[in-house]
Amino acid sequence: MSLLDYFRSSKKNTASTAKERLQIIVAHERRKRNSPDYLPQLERDILEVIRKYVDISPEQIAVSLEKRDDELSVLELNVTFPDDKR
Amino acid sequence: MSLLDYFRSSKKNTASTAKERLQIIVAHERRKRNSPDYLPQLERDILEVIRKYVDISPEQIAVSLEKRDDELSVLELNVTFPDDKR
Repeated sequence: MSLLDYFRSSKKNTASTAKERLQIIVAHERRKRNSPDYLPQLERDILEVIRKYVDISPEQIAVSLEKRDDELSVLELNVTFPDDKR
Repeated sequence: MSLLDYFRSSKKNTASTAKERLQIIVAHERRKRNSPDYLPQLERDILEVIRKYVDISPEQIAVSLEKRDDELSVLELNVTFPDDKR
């Protein structure tokens, strides 16, 4: 399954909710265990960038940062816009 | 399949290449066709943010921006770091 297929199926699943959504995924694979993990800082920067384009409050953003193991960190940001604001 | 499962399987597929990778996916689902598409601008901003943390040249970044239909745009940035630079 390709990545675009994933979003395609994700779209179908949520179509009935009729909400505008913005989803951002950052996956960082480190091959050396001592390489820096900058995802927490990157998270703040990306949120700041998004706020340039959309008017969102903190409670509209779900952020998840998972360190799966020494080599893979995944940052996920989900923004859902209420219908009445769009 | 959850999104994290996707990255988990993706990691397995590329483990043999032994490269450090950073992958960023932005999916924007618009419920109204006239809502603005700001992904091209967001692409430039995100690249700028990444460059704060990693020293990358343009040829190390693969960018794909796909407008699947009126309601779904997907931006994908793939950064691969050569082994000799890390």
